[in-house]
Amino acid sequence: MTTLSSPVKITATDAPDQPVQTPELAALYQRFEAELLVPLWTEIGELMPPMPSSNALPHRWQWKQLLPMAEQAGHLVPIGRGGERRAIALANPGLGGRPFATPTLWAAIQYLNPREDAPVHRHTQNAFRFVVEGEGVWTVVNGDPVAMRRGDFLPQAGWNWHGHHNISDGPMAWIDGLDIPFQHYTDSTFFEFGPDEVDTRDAPDRSRAERLWGHPGLRPLTHLTPTPATPLLAYRWEHTDRALSEQLALEAEGYPATTEPGHAAVRYTNPTTGGDVLPTVRTEFHRLAPDTRTSTQREVGSSVYQVFDGAGEITVGSVRWTVERGDLIAVPSWHAMSLATDTGMDLFRFSDTPIFERLHLDRVVREGAVT
Amino acid sequence: MTTLSSPVKITATDAPDQPVQTPELAALYQRFEAELLVPLWTEIGELMPPMPSSNALPHRWQWKQLLPMAEQAGHLVPIGRGGERRAIALANPGLGGRPFATPTLWAAIQYLNPREDAPVHRHTQNAFRFVVEGEGVWTVVNGDPVAMRRGDFLPQAGWNWHGHHNISDGPMAWIDGLDIPFQHYTDSTFFEFGPDEVDTRDAPDRSRAERLWGHPGLRPLTHLTPTPATPLLAYRWEHTDRALSEQLALEAEGYPATTEPGHAAVRYTNPTTGGDVLPTVRTEFHRLAPDTRTSTQREVGSSVYQVFDGAGEITVGSVRWTVERGDLIAVPSWHAMSLATDTGMDLFRFSDTPIFERLHLDRVVREGAVT
Amino acid sequence: MTTLSSPVKITATDAPDQPVQTPELAALYQRFEAELLVPLWTEIGELMPPMPSSNALPHRWQWKQLLPMAEQAGHLVPIGRGGERRAIALANPGLGGRPFATPTLWAAIQYLNPREDAPVHRHTQNAFRFVVEGEGVWTVVNGDPVAMRRGDFLPQAGWNWHGHHNISDGPMAWIDGLDIPFQHYTDSTFFEFGPDEVDTRDAPDRSRAERLWGHPGLRPLTHLTPTPATPLLAYRWEHTDRALSEQLALEAEGYPATTEPGHAAVRYTNPTTGGDVLPTVRTEFHRLAPDTRTSTQREVGSSVYQVFDGAGEITVGSVRWTVERGDLIAVPSWHAMSLATDTGMDLFRFSDTPIFERLHLDRVVREGAVT
Amino acid sequence: MTTLSSPVKITATDAPDQPVQTPELAALYQRFEAELLVPLWTEIGELMPPMPSSNALPHRWQWKQLLPMAEQAGHLVPIGRGGERRAIALANPGLGGRPFATPTLWAAIQYLNPREDAPVHRHTQNAFRFVVEGEGVWTVVNGDPVAMRRGDFLPQAGWNWHGHHNISDGPMAWIDGLDIPFQHYTDSTFFEFGPDEVDTRDAPDRSRAERLWGHPGLRPLTHLTPTPATPLLAYRWEHTDRALSEQLALEAEGYPATTEPGHAAVRYTNPTTGGDVLPTVRTEFHRLAPDTRTSTQREVGSSVYQVFDGAGEITVGSVRWTVERGDLIAVPSWHAMSLATDTGMDLFRFSDTPIFERLHLDRVVREGAVT
Repeated sequence: MTTLSSPVKITATDAPDQPVQTPELAALYQRFEAELLVPLWTEIGELMPPMPSSNALPHRWQWKQLLPMAEQAGHLVPIGRGGERRAIALANPGLGGRPFATPTLWAAIQYLNPREDAPVHRHTQNAFRFVVEGEGVWTVVNGDPVAMRRGDFLPQAGWNWHGHHNISDGPMAWIDGLDIPFQHYTDSTFFEFGPDEVDTRDAPDRSRAERLWGHPGLRPLTHLTPTPATPLLAYRWEHTDRALSEQLALEAEGYPATTEPGHAAVRYTNPTTGGDVLPTVRTEFHRLAPDTRTSTQREVGSSVYQVFDGAGEITVGSVRWTVERGDLIAVPSWHAMSLATDTGMDLFRFSDTPIFERLHLDRVVREGAVT
Repeated sequence: MTTLSSPVKITATDAPDQPVQTPELAALYQRFEAELLVPLWTEIGELMPPMPSSNALPHRWQWKQLLPMAEQAGHLVPIGRGGERRAIALANPGLGGRPFATPTLWAAIQYLNPREDAPVHRHTQNAFRFVVEGEGVWTVVNGDPVAMRRGDFLPQAGWNWHGHHNISDGPMAWIDGLDIPFQHYTDSTFFEFGPDEVDTRDAPDRSRAERLWGHPGLRPLTHLTPTPATPLLAYRWEHTDRALSEQLALEAEGYPATTEPGHAAVRYTNPTTGGDVLPTVRTEFHRLAPDTRTSTQREVGSSVYQVFDGAGEITVGSVRWTVERGDLIAVPSWHAMSLATDTGMDLFRFSDTPIFERLHLDRVVREGAVT
Repeated sequence: MTTLSSPVKITATDAPDQPVQTPELAALYQRFEAELLVPLWTEIGELMPPMPSSNALPHRWQWKQLLPMAEQAGHLVPIGRGGERRAIALANPGLGGRPFATPTLWAAIQYLNPREDAPVHRHTQNAFRFVVEGEGVWTVVNGDPVAMRRGDFLPQAGWNWHGHHNISDGPMAWIDGLDIPFQHYTDSTFFEFGPDEVDTRDAPDRSRAERLWGHPGLRPLTHLTPTPATPLLAYRWEHTDRALSEQLALEAEGYPATTEPGHAAVRYTNPTTGGDVLPTVRTEFHRLAPDTRTSTQREVGSSVYQVFDGAGEITVGSVRWTVERGDLIAVPSWHAMSLATDTGMDLFRFSDTPIFERLHLDRVVREGAVT
Repeated sequence: MTTLSSPVKITATDAPDQPVQTPELAALYQRFEAELLVPLWTEIGELMPPMPSSNALPHRWQWKQLLPMAEQAGHLVPIGRGGERRAIALANPGLGGRPFATPTLWAAIQYLNPREDAPVHRHTQNAFRFVVEGEGVWTVVNGDPVAMRRGDFLPQAGWNWHGHHNISDGPMAWIDGLDIPFQHYTDSTFFEFGPDEVDTRDAPDRSRAERLWGHPGLRPLTHLTPTPATPLLAYRWEHTDRALSEQLALEAEGYPATTEPGHAAVRYTNPTTGGDVLPTVRTEFHRLAPDTRTSTQREVGSSVYQVFDGAGEITVGSVRWTVERGDLIAVPSWHAMSLATDTGMDLFRFSDTPIFERLHLDRVVREGAVT
């Protein structure tokens, strides 16, 4: 299976502004093909468009569809070595059936039955989990068990050993985000199997990572070197919720604290650098107060939103969806995007923006609020 | 034309270690497909291999084939607005006929007839030119004419206006390198047309950029802010040649100066940072003394070599080619690569390594010299 | 008053290894003096010693002496424009009576009577407050009132407007730390007066800075640019205390979390960078479990410790003191320093280490624990 | 000898805006003194002035005075282990007779007789040599002999072994610049003796450092890690001269290349970072075309200029000097400084600016050109 092939071979002469067809030119084109050469002049329109013209399409996946299918998979599909995870990935309709939410990002619902394990492995892909509802699973990262509960964000940088165990009597589902498509495309992925079973059944309220790193502005003297990814393995909902509430309260008191009226937002950051939690993935949480309409934004790179609470509308390019808890929306590069809500809405967001910022390819345009 | 589609739809049940086929499972798979979902357990083998498993293949293009075709294109294909450049790109045999030397890199031979112009445009793609033979063309970057001559390396960061003019009575061909495939895949490309004709016919021996920046270790006080890409628009052969000769001379005098015995190498760098000349592309020049066999190296990311002078052998994975002046070789990610020569060989190299280094995905393994 | 003058003029011939005294040499030395020249060979021993040989001396100031004098100053010395602060500074006995705790660091006890204000000003000196006991004062930084309570650390970067108001019926004393001697020596200090009275009487439990920034790993989307100093204006005791307790608990559970057995420590950091809270001053909090003896450490640069709780011994060079709550100790550069306690001891520490790290002059040597 | 003592003890009551003198206050002040305490309110005027108020004074040392004294020292003062160097330092008239050109910078004329050696040592002080006239000496850095000739700038980072040998039949004098006062004040200096004699008599035209690093924009693949100081040990006059000439030529052709009309300038930089050659010392070369008057500049930090060629006037604060080849001028912090020439003037400059930039204490104000 190849991801870069084009299903239909375009002939050079289909493109606009082409040289006059002559037998000599046809012969030259045949020689090109024989020698594995392609002229720029037949391809430039597609390769170098005036602005990003993604194959990916805006799309919405509804939680009320996703969750039952995950439950059904819980009945029908065993979990174990080889398949590794009972994860069901979003496949962007513009990307040929591949399990890619966007050209660079993977998003999947993962499901674990009561008393079940997901076996230990590690990979270079940067990953995170976000919990829209439920609890009972601990993700165990390098032997450190990290509780997963509604609203928690759990980043996990590439090449760390990890498995999951469900010690509860109920199943649990959550969202996995990774840079699988990006690393697949760029041929940078490594993978190793660990033990088939998670090597601890401990289920502490707080992970060791949180006990070391979860104190605002305080750094253990044992860990003074900046790390490319965050050492903090859980960003708890209580902190996120409070940070967003404070922004809206400060706004109400007359102080600048929100990105625009009624729109509070935090970025999850690496406490050793202040930068993104993962080298390739940006993660944020947005809260819209009731009766808020955001400005419209376009940016280079793609993102995925998940509605965490409340309801509203998301507009991406020319499409507008009504969304509610758990719904996921893919936003391709350079698509105009805006949010609106009457009753208030909380959203988790992840994107590939760090890739572009680090390579100096980032661009953002924000337009006035939609009315 | 879509680059991410797979030409053949794999069915989930083709993969190994799959759940037992039942009518219920088949029904679930159908629902997945209807809802644009794909399970991980059917895809993990391809998406998360133990090590990079590129679709790209090692390949050699021979200069003696390329140049006549470029000359032929010079006769048959006009150059102008729309097609923009008479450039003929290497199409890796593993990448479905697309004009991609590797998944991330574009390499093309560009050809300009006497007294011809390539029209002015700009794009976010980072680019460079390298001249294996000939002269007579000036690339004009933001109005600064830069001579192109054998052995010169001419970087040109994204989003700078540029065109070329040939003021001589002979044609000229050279190599263009860009990150077109990477920016195409990541949907980060912008493009703008400039004037149809290059707005100067000046053809100075040295560009203004060189006059400002071409003094070792000296920085104009007017330009003290680091820039993501190099402000120096030409790296002249006389300097490259001297730097390599000095390394081999120092080695002969008993001082460590070469990367391994008989193997001198320089990296082209941005004088404002000491880092790579372009945010996404690394460029180097390697010289092998006669009777040199290099060690074997694997690294994450792909590269393209062009033989500049001399002759020898290049081994990539399980393939070995005899190469000579002008030949181009694509090296996919994580393929073992080594060089050997009896009579000495000079090579230009470019790669996508900065992408991986900046995202902390870089890995290199070097093995003992092949004997 | 000049800080760089030497009180006694050394004659060149006092130094060792000197040229033979002759009338000609004496005449030359006279010409040197007339022309404002000094030979290296008479000065090198003092200027370029084998290792740092500070004029500063180790010294202890006892809180039980300091506090009554501050109270007495509260009775006798009014506070207001001109004098600006009722602050009484530690004067290292080796530094000629100047109010310098070390060559680079200022440490003072500041005292505010009930209902008293310290007027608003700003200066380039980087400052912080640390509260060893008491409460009732708010430091108001750019209009944001920040409560001061036992155990709180309150950094305040240079060039921010600030004043203090005591809204309580009791007096309050705390410690001010600044880089006054360093900026005085290097001639980099600017100072401006603001209003004579603090412009708010608000006394909220938490400052706006904490409400925006005091959430672990969460960054407001309105503030994404790294800043040289921390935007978080209070590091509360409850967080510091918990972080240290967790380190000792993790150690007891068998996980590496302490700098050495029984020795927990955190560094206060800037959440926008992960680095020091202030460009020139490092601040830390150390907790020794009962029956702990630390290793001995020497480092380039000077520091000041304040005992926050408990009691123990501090050894600096050849001097050992018994210390208790509130005592302050100056540690000059490259002096061997160690701590010991039978009953447990908490200490706040600040140092000039960032200066040396940023200039690549830092060195640290740690020797085995003293027994 | 102590550098921080004040020669005259100020009594607190000398300062303005002081509390009313009472017996109680006098008693308190006595207790302060006994307990090594100093109130802020008596010192604030000196310690926290509105803007930098340096003890250092502007001063000019004339080459025609310096050189004969160095020659006389060559007759009277032997060179060898202990004294280490026949160097005669500028002693700023405001700094109490200490050999400090400014509070942070050392500048000295060094003199070596024919066939003489300066013994090998190393120290943490960052150093450089600049040659205003003469030749015949090689500075040998870690065994690499580096020729010294008129116009050459030779940086040498702290903690590298170095000595000098004069292989010629004539004496040679040059300027040494170091951060001795800064490291002395901050107690960060280390020093070690090496061999009494320089271990090579080689006198190559170009050092190994230049052969490896002296190629514009080309970096040896053996040295890819950024280093805090430059690995290039000589910046040759021919390159500096050409860079400055090109700037003035570009200005004449209508392109922005000079810092202001008629004022060309380059900064010596570290090719591994693009930043300053030394962590604590900035070095530049300035060329004024005939009939040029520069704008007036104030900046935090001090500098020293040496006239390399031509003649003109330097104005520092309220003092104006006529200067010519070899003259040295000390410019204290925040003193207005400007240059003027009728016939053209070349100047070398060094300053302590990196200290302030790295600590975020830098400030610069430039005013309109003086007419």
